[in-house]
Amino acid sequence: MDEHLTPESILHLGLGFWASKALLSAVEIGVFTHLANGPRDDEEICVDLELHPRATKDFLDTLVSVGMLERTDGKYRNAAATDLFLDRNKPSYVGGMLEMANARLYPFWGSLTEALKTGHPQNEAKVGENFFTALYEDADRLEQFLHAMTGISMGDAHVLADKFPWDRYETVIDIGTAEGCVPVQVATRYPHLSGGGFDLPPAGSIFEKYVASFGLADRLRFYPGDFFSDPLPSADVLVMGHLLHDWSLDEKLLLLRKAYDALPGGGALIVYESIIDDDRRSNTFGLLMSLNMLIETQDGFDYTGADCQSWMSEVGFRDTYVEALAGPDSMVVGIKPS
Amino acid sequence: MDEHLTPESILHLGLGFWASKALLSAVEIGVFTHLANGPRDDEEICVDLELHPRATKDFLDTLVSVGMLERTDGKYRNAAATDLFLDRNKPSYVGGMLEMANARLYPFWGSLTEALKTGHPQNEAKVGENFFTALYEDADRLEQFLHAMTGISMGDAHVLADKFPWDRYETVIDIGTAEGCVPVQVATRYPHLSGGGFDLPPAGSIFEKYVASFGLADRLRFYPGDFFSDPLPSADVLVMGHLLHDWSLDEKLLLLRKAYDALPGGGALIVYESIIDDDRRSNTFGLLMSLNMLIETQDGFDYTGADCQSWMSEVGFRDTYVEALAGPDSMVVGIKPS
Repeated sequence: MDEHLTPESILHLGLGFWASKALLSAVEIGVFTHLANGPRDDEEICVDLELHPRATKDFLDTLVSVGMLERTDGKYRNAAATDLFLDRNKPSYVGGMLEMANARLYPFWGSLTEALKTGHPQNEAKVGENFFTALYEDADRLEQFLHAMTGISMGDAHVLADKFPWDRYETVIDIGTAEGCVPVQVATRYPHLSGGGFDLPPAGSIFEKYVASFGLADRLRFYPGDFFSDPLPSADVLVMGHLLHDWSLDEKLLLLRKAYDALPGGGALIVYESIIDDDRRSNTFGLLMSLNMLIETQDGFDYTGADCQSWMSEVGFRDTYVEALAGPDSMVVGIKPS
Repeated sequence: MDEHLTPESILHLGLGFWASKALLSAVEIGVFTHLANGPRDDEEICVDLELHPRATKDFLDTLVSVGMLERTDGKYRNAAATDLFLDRNKPSYVGGMLEMANARLYPFWGSLTEALKTGHPQNEAKVGENFFTALYEDADRLEQFLHAMTGISMGDAHVLADKFPWDRYETVIDIGTAEGCVPVQVATRYPHLSGGGFDLPPAGSIFEKYVASFGLADRLRFYPGDFFSDPLPSADVLVMGHLLHDWSLDEKLLLLRKAYDALPGGGALIVYESIIDDDRRSNTFGLLMSLNMLIETQDGFDYTGADCQSWMSEVGFRDTYVEALAGPDSMVVGIKPS
């Protein structure tokens, strides 16, 4: 027995769901939205948020110890990042993603072993329901969800605006655009660009409201449609973010072909999401996202940059390359020959 | 909006249950026990462990990316720590704790918000059952569980043998001893010591088997009893590890008083577990363990070293001090005046 080995890192990872769930419950309870109004002590928080006194202080001090809250003289307040990203009343709120993770993904991941043994999704599909169908039928929930998508795409959208040679192109359309986070960021930076976003019809009014709030309604418009049953709209640049991983290899290739067909010669396709590193050993988040696709979809999976480049080449793209975006995300770019 | 702030650390923590559950499923499926036999490629592992091919490679590469497996030329093998601590066939196995976390704590923590709102446990108690009562009635499960406790106490036991002045004492009894990990480590290091372990009667034969396997049956014996309804046995040093946090403040004080009564003048009580730092802002594991007591017990909670020192003083102990053990754990020591 090696005296230098300890089981600590194993136990730390295995019990990592504790800290994760504490943050998810804090978002659910509205701790950060409440503390955005100003510092409060544990007794005030307990009363205001209708918590039981038994564990309120342990809960708040846990959030302090993981850097999500700060505490001075017994008063708790938001850390800078949680004040910006977890206050429901700020446009920068990303908690919608975590609310969804808390209500859906946490319990569904409880069946990961069954998913690994059967290959079957473990979400609403197990009882014959479809989360996305139900979501697109409920206007309020859809707006919240699409706004949460903006929160998690914002980092990528900033870097995408920086790193892609937008000055070479005139038009851009984002496929599966949600609120239109990416076209808004790109069009804000490049006044010569126009285009818009493609999504299912119920997303239209939500997209238009978001775009109008940036004064971009004259340059960005909504293209309604279903990317499997309809042709894709044409633009110099098409973008597919957090989209291809939902689908099987055949569906991925079909979507890449439809993008190829919709682009003019010299046009570019940008695919971005948590692209796995080619050696499949460093982008943990990308690998876990692929397991999340196992839980959430019939045939979806995440993939490496090399995988995506090879599929792009197979449908006709040339000059493909991979470039890092924010955090665990990268973009894969392919050019349609002139 | 501060351009330097990103939501990455928030999303990383909020989705931290993904990596955690991947490891728990790997332990459940027996990945590490299987790979202790030698390296295998993903297709062999898929067949041998009856996994579905859809996500086997993503699952294994996730485990590589978090350092739990290694991969060379497409063959997976255990990392040094997982080979030692997660192979069921080695005595150093700590996976029993993670099997329990996977089967029980992961789903129970899904109700953390309800626990915080009501103050009520979220385990078997919700349906009128008691995990520990059922455990002590099933000899095989009890042996596995007590062995898992040895795994998680081993690091502390080594440091406890190093740091406490055992040469000043002749006898030691560990209260709630399980297999007897602590007395075995201490008695192995100090041939002049004798004593044993106190636990509920069903633990007796398991304790005796473990102690005999170290050739210590002549110096360490089992003391059967219930620490609430029976007096504690007497020894120069009494140890209470991972025990006080299960109970209310009144019960904690009662147990400390019973230890005081059982000790001779000059005797020492050692309390050890994941003692929270006095400022309650750095020992995240200790704070989370207190939330785990919310989930698992009627009134239990974890506490700081200063809390424990003050309770010890209240029942009569003097010369109390706190000293770090392994990882997030510390010991609090108190001396009964002569």
